[in-house]
Amino acid sequence: MFNIALFGAGRIGQIHAQNVALNADCTLKYVVDMNDDVAQKTAEKYGTKAVSVEYALNDSDVHAVLICTITETHADLIERSAKAGKAIFCEKPVDLSIERVNACLTIVKEEGVPLMMGFNRRFDPNFAHLKAVLDSGDMGSVEMVTISSRDPEAPPSSYINSSGGLFRDMTIHDFDVARWLLGEDPVSIYATASSMTSDHVKEAGDVDTAIVTLTCKSGKMAVITNSRRASYGYDQRVEVHASGGMLTVNNMPESTLSIASDKGMTSQKPMAFFLERYAAAYQHELDAFVTGLKSGIENYPVGEDGRKALLIADAAFKSFETGSVQSLTFD
Amino acid sequence: MFNIALFGAGRIGQIHAQNVALNADCTLKYVVDMNDDVAQKTAEKYGTKAVSVEYALNDSDVHAVLICTITETHADLIERSAKAGKAIFCEKPVDLSIERVNACLTIVKEEGVPLMMGFNRRFDPNFAHLKAVLDSGDMGSVEMVTISSRDPEAPPSSYINSSGGLFRDMTIHDFDVARWLLGEDPVSIYATASSMTSDHVKEAGDVDTAIVTLTCKSGKMAVITNSRRASYGYDQRVEVHASGGMLTVNNMPESTLSIASDKGMTSQKPMAFFLERYAAAYQHELDAFVTGLKSGIENYPVGEDGRKALLIADAAFKSFETGSVQSLTFD
Amino acid sequence: MFNIALFGAGRIGQIHAQNVALNADCTLKYVVDMNDDVAQKTAEKYGTKAVSVEYALNDSDVHAVLICTITETHADLIERSAKAGKAIFCEKPVDLSIERVNACLTIVKEEGVPLMMGFNRRFDPNFAHLKAVLDSGDMGSVEMVTISSRDPEAPPSSYINSSGGLFRDMTIHDFDVARWLLGEDPVSIYATASSMTSDHVKEAGDVDTAIVTLTCKSGKMAVITNSRRASYGYDQRVEVHASGGMLTVNNMPESTLSIASDKGMTSQKPMAFFLERYAAAYQHELDAFVTGLKSGIENYPVGEDGRKALLIADAAFKSFETGSVQSLTFD
Amino acid sequence: MFNIALFGAGRIGQIHAQNVALNADCTLKYVVDMNDDVAQKTAEKYGTKAVSVEYALNDSDVHAVLICTITETHADLIERSAKAGKAIFCEKPVDLSIERVNACLTIVKEEGVPLMMGFNRRFDPNFAHLKAVLDSGDMGSVEMVTISSRDPEAPPSSYINSSGGLFRDMTIHDFDVARWLLGEDPVSIYATASSMTSDHVKEAGDVDTAIVTLTCKSGKMAVITNSRRASYGYDQRVEVHASGGMLTVNNMPESTLSIASDKGMTSQKPMAFFLERYAAAYQHELDAFVTGLKSGIENYPVGEDGRKALLIADAAFKSFETGSVQSLTFD
Repeated sequence: MFNIALFGAGRIGQIHAQNVALNADCTLKYVVDMNDDVAQKTAEKYGTKAVSVEYALNDSDVHAVLICTITETHADLIERSAKAGKAIFCEKPVDLSIERVNACLTIVKEEGVPLMMGFNRRFDPNFAHLKAVLDSGDMGSVEMVTISSRDPEAPPSSYINSSGGLFRDMTIHDFDVARWLLGEDPVSIYATASSMTSDHVKEAGDVDTAIVTLTCKSGKMAVITNSRRASYGYDQRVEVHASGGMLTVNNMPESTLSIASDKGMTSQKPMAFFLERYAAAYQHELDAFVTGLKSGIENYPVGEDGRKALLIADAAFKSFETGSVQSLTFD
Repeated sequence: MFNIALFGAGRIGQIHAQNVALNADCTLKYVVDMNDDVAQKTAEKYGTKAVSVEYALNDSDVHAVLICTITETHADLIERSAKAGKAIFCEKPVDLSIERVNACLTIVKEEGVPLMMGFNRRFDPNFAHLKAVLDSGDMGSVEMVTISSRDPEAPPSSYINSSGGLFRDMTIHDFDVARWLLGEDPVSIYATASSMTSDHVKEAGDVDTAIVTLTCKSGKMAVITNSRRASYGYDQRVEVHASGGMLTVNNMPESTLSIASDKGMTSQKPMAFFLERYAAAYQHELDAFVTGLKSGIENYPVGEDGRKALLIADAAFKSFETGSVQSLTFD
Repeated sequence: MFNIALFGAGRIGQIHAQNVALNADCTLKYVVDMNDDVAQKTAEKYGTKAVSVEYALNDSDVHAVLICTITETHADLIERSAKAGKAIFCEKPVDLSIERVNACLTIVKEEGVPLMMGFNRRFDPNFAHLKAVLDSGDMGSVEMVTISSRDPEAPPSSYINSSGGLFRDMTIHDFDVARWLLGEDPVSIYATASSMTSDHVKEAGDVDTAIVTLTCKSGKMAVITNSRRASYGYDQRVEVHASGGMLTVNNMPESTLSIASDKGMTSQKPMAFFLERYAAAYQHELDAFVTGLKSGIENYPVGEDGRKALLIADAAFKSFETGSVQSLTFD
Repeated sequence: MFNIALFGAGRIGQIHAQNVALNADCTLKYVVDMNDDVAQKTAEKYGTKAVSVEYALNDSDVHAVLICTITETHADLIERSAKAGKAIFCEKPVDLSIERVNACLTIVKEEGVPLMMGFNRRFDPNFAHLKAVLDSGDMGSVEMVTISSRDPEAPPSSYINSSGGLFRDMTIHDFDVARWLLGEDPVSIYATASSMTSDHVKEAGDVDTAIVTLTCKSGKMAVITNSRRASYGYDQRVEVHASGGMLTVNNMPESTLSIASDKGMTSQKPMAFFLERYAAAYQHELDAFVTGLKSGIENYPVGEDGRKALLIADAAFKSFETGSVQSLTFD
């Protein structure tokens, strides 16, 4: 039984707390949150204690920490947890600055602790099914990956302003999925983008619509289409063209009800947003982290995956800014 | 090259005329229609002559006739054509009276001419594909057939009054499809029906909604659901459950456009009505008739299929009228 | 907080125990199971105690019981729980004998305790969505209900022998769904059935394939198609034809992955069986029971619904046995 | 009644001949083909004459010509037909050299004759339906267009060698569709491409897999994904993201049959290739040309559309060759 400390009991922290409860091999030992009420309430719900970061890290019975706090605190908490010898699960990103990420990952490496990055989409049952079929070799080798990724609506200006921009905040998930499915790191990137859908995004100096193309040395390629706003809801689809055919993951509808009338045949919109669509992914992600604790094998996205996704996002922004193709290196 | 005389140049006659033109092995020699203008205009369009029934039947160069006139004239025209030694294609039904059908088919048999009944659905590319897979044996043996058959809206009272009622007019097509897919004649039938959708149908003393169950001696069974009105359009679906799985034919949408919006994901309604949905079926049906002229093999629904479908329709009506299960015999 | 005693900690009992844990308003106070190990293990997992039926019913702090034991014990446990003044959730059926059901429900009525029957399908999010749209009136009035209900494969002979037969064991769920969606009790029934798919079912004297038609006084009608074996998996679909159009609930696929290759476009089979397909239904069902405890309003299937479904199943069997249409009365 | 001369009676010429026969307002007056047998046979089939280009152009009763010969002859035949005062329908492209195209279109302009380019996809009922909904304004303004365009397999080396390469031969259709749906000419282009699927394409120095991104001044953008080989068949899909939602045109399956078995739910592959998929498009295209003859209004793709598509294709090739973004100008 692994004892876990939760850092951050907000929206996403609550989900991880619930998934800890559903996992037979771990238990929630501590809850840490800046907001005392939230920390206390969450601790009560799961029959555990609200403490400080220091307290949790000093307890040698704590095997692992879940970092679900705001982005600005991630790198620091990772470093402190690593120095305390804890296994770490951290929501993406490590940091929005690649220099800070490099420094942080060096410490993780020195301390030799596991670090799982919360790229939840790899654990979505649909995407995972696609990847399993690819890995089986039944469909031959990958040639092209196309990723459609759209949010129902843009986040508020306050979020946009501190998000790092479309590529570092939203497309970064798609960069990770692209690398995962291509099975190869891209060597060049081109991004075109504009502000078409959301006035406040434009005012914040950010873009809300983008097409990003990635090319690999082998000739494999990927394209990501993004929008901050899709009137039909949260659009999360993947298409992989392989030598043996095409593998497609479609959206999950809110229900399987369809209505036929004089207006046509209407089926349900995709599940509302990431909490609904990726509910199963969050559970499987936590399970993978715990399985890693048991086996000592990091069979999940690690710090280096977070670093590479950020390098690609930085290059995407530069491509957009300069209107030119950018080379990608990950050294 | 087979010379063909068209009897009846109304809506359905026009379709057959067009399909004769598209078939490389036959040509339209004569057009016959009560309405001189229609006859003349059709003859001109296809570079042929408008004549009388007598004239056409007396021409020994005419190999075959297409009977597309009103139901009341079918049996008489079949008999005259048979006695003139012509191969016959006739729109369903031979007649609404089983005695008249029996008498007519006796003459056809005596004269030894081919008689194809216009059960067009067997030639729909979708249904034909399903049947071909069944016949291949790949899916094992048939266990259950379910047929969904709904018209967009009920025909006018004048039509209802002379139609013979729902079972003899509309369900008769489904009875033929059921026999064709079961590969076995049913031994009993139960029909429940009511007037729910169309006031004028009720006033005409007919029903507009029905469920009909057919049971075979082997244990195979079929169910047909009917409505004279479907707000979403012409509903023509078939599901066959076989030992190896389920084969489904769905409706053909008006186009493959789908629209995703905050109202949901909307795809197109089924093609409007039988002229659109069964356009290809009419062409393949005529081709099958001409292939029969060439080969001498009647690989299509014949008079006996028309007779059996009518016997089932009569029993369906009796089942509905009495509220009891009816035995079926075809002697 | 409502204290709940679980009677029966087998496969279905475990699901209810988990759903009690996920519900904020109730807690598992006791676990009862003939198998001491199972009872003990389940009690430990949820931090509660394994006791006897007597003990649980004698504890005045227990508000409600969940009866998840074998069918033979249901009526007796209902009566004892009712006499102890407990609210009751019971898996279907009350009993396979209508006389026993009547006697049992009389006692429940005398004692004035709530009794919810576990017709889980009403709580499936897909079916519930369909029902909510119907209830909104947007689609007009119901005309026809068609239910497709097939199991992946027949249960073993031991189960078949004590099941009460296809209609009482399997179709009974569909009878409840039909009544629920028709919004009216049927007045007549016709069932045709055969043994086509599973030799051991035939040997046990039961049928494995059936079509059942229900007719209401208003003219509304329903048809249920059943099979004990579907090679493509657990088939649970509903189609409702209303004056405003058709509402369809389709199966839920194992994932949204589809594969396009030279073999065609292949999507996933339906979720394997009832535990997977109805996982959400079981959770919502338990939530509805608890909501009833809070509100005092029985907004769920009650004992009378179980009784009516059994009366219909008995009539279905008689219809099949005699080959004739049966009248339905529920007095 | 418009008299039409057909130049080239090969595969595509035969289709146009058939569509002339189905159009009530025009008639086939002459057939021209290098192969005497083909010319003669086609002329007989449609009751007309096989003649030379000179003969057809010198007949003042000929209103229009259909140019369906090999690419190398297009520009010359357009010029001769224009000088003879004929309305012209020409299969794409005018020529593979932009200088030759410019010269040819200058003559067409001087002569003032109509010139329709055979960009058939605009007349596909599915794409046309999408465009009509866009034009209605119901879905708001376009933001992004994504086009999936894959052939079942690469053409033979002989064809590849004279095709002008992937972008000028295959993607050129997609460039026209992109311009048509964007409603705006792009200002920059980026193409990444590789040889992954077909060895003989690689040996011919051509690419077989590509992603092309187009950006407009307004911020609208489009992406085209191409492959010369798709194991699942001819892939022709379009997705338009507009402010009001997403419009999608999917492939048309060979039939609506789907098969459910223990292998999953399998539906049919897309129609085999362009002759099947675009059969209706070819008919509507010819109808649009004839409607133009009647009205004098060129409501179809004209020479300038052909020229712009070629300019984009040239830029795509340069982008691929240099690995850099290219600006687009159409002066």
